[in-house]
Amino acid sequence: MAVEIERKFLVHPDRLPSLVDGQRIVQGYIATADRTTVRIRLSDQQAWLTLKGLTTGISRAEFEYPIPAADARQMLDQLCSGGVVEKTRYRIKHEELTWELDVFEGSNCGLIVAELELSSETQAFALPVWASEEVSHDPRYTNLALMLHPYQQWECHGTDTYR
Amino acid sequence: MAVEIERKFLVHPDRLPSLVDGQRIVQGYIATADRTTVRIRLSDQQAWLTLKGLTTGISRAEFEYPIPAADARQMLDQLCSGGVVEKTRYRIKHEELTWELDVFEGSNCGLIVAELELSSETQAFALPVWASEEVSHDPRYTNLALMLHPYQQWECHGTDTYR
Repeated sequence: MAVEIERKFLVHPDRLPSLVDGQRIVQGYIATADRTTVRIRLSDQQAWLTLKGLTTGISRAEFEYPIPAADARQMLDQLCSGGVVEKTRYRIKHEELTWELDVFEGSNCGLIVAELELSSETQAFALPVWASEEVSHDPRYTNLALMLHPYQQWECHGTDTYR
Repeated sequence: MAVEIERKFLVHPDRLPSLVDGQRIVQGYIATADRTTVRIRLSDQQAWLTLKGLTTGISRAEFEYPIPAADARQMLDQLCSGGVVEKTRYRIKHEELTWELDVFEGSNCGLIVAELELSSETQAFALPVWASEEVSHDPRYTNLALMLHPYQQWECHGTDTYR
């Protein structure tokens, strides 16, 4: 088991550097009855099955296993009742740390989210000039929430209304 | 993906051969919102994560992956909200086919179920003298149901009342 600790930010798209070597990702979820997440992620010819426990603060127990891409395709088709989230992921290095920038597509088109994985909840980091509001604690920006309530269906695309 | 096709029977305990080399199994489930099953199974130092789709007749899509036993212990503890099923599994060969005999423990103590995995729904097989009623289609005998409604809490231990 790993513990996932991450900070999540919206971005100023016009301040981003050129985006290169993006990785196309399609992911879906098994519908669960409590707050455990069961995710199937397919990227090119690689795939993973991931279980995540309850979130405590910005930390979350995570169990991730590589699986055959053919299995992932069948699971996305047969077991993921709620649809999928599609995005292209870019990696951007900023002062020794690597950010993951997710440019969403399909029903979440228009949304770009930057994530930084940390080794502790108190780890310091430099905020890039292209980072805007932090949304680490906003439940609407989890990928599961974005599948159920896609960005393009939101009435308001700011975060103030919801705080 | 494999397709699981199995027949399931109750047994006459007094007609069973001697049971040897049993494998102790503890398994739990992630609570799901539809009819997909997410199972964590721990046996001695081996463990598996298994996803099963909807049952069609006696067939079911099944995706199974070996995982570290330490992960399984943490998942059983942290992610399986509904408790666990405990049993000892024995293998009995009968006329070229191997039956799996599950002797349940804990809250399902008293229940013994024999399962035979087949390669097609129409495959013929010889019924051992110790097999009694078939319960392949009785939903109470799935391991998930036995976790939620253990055998010891059933009002009636026959199957006639429920048919």
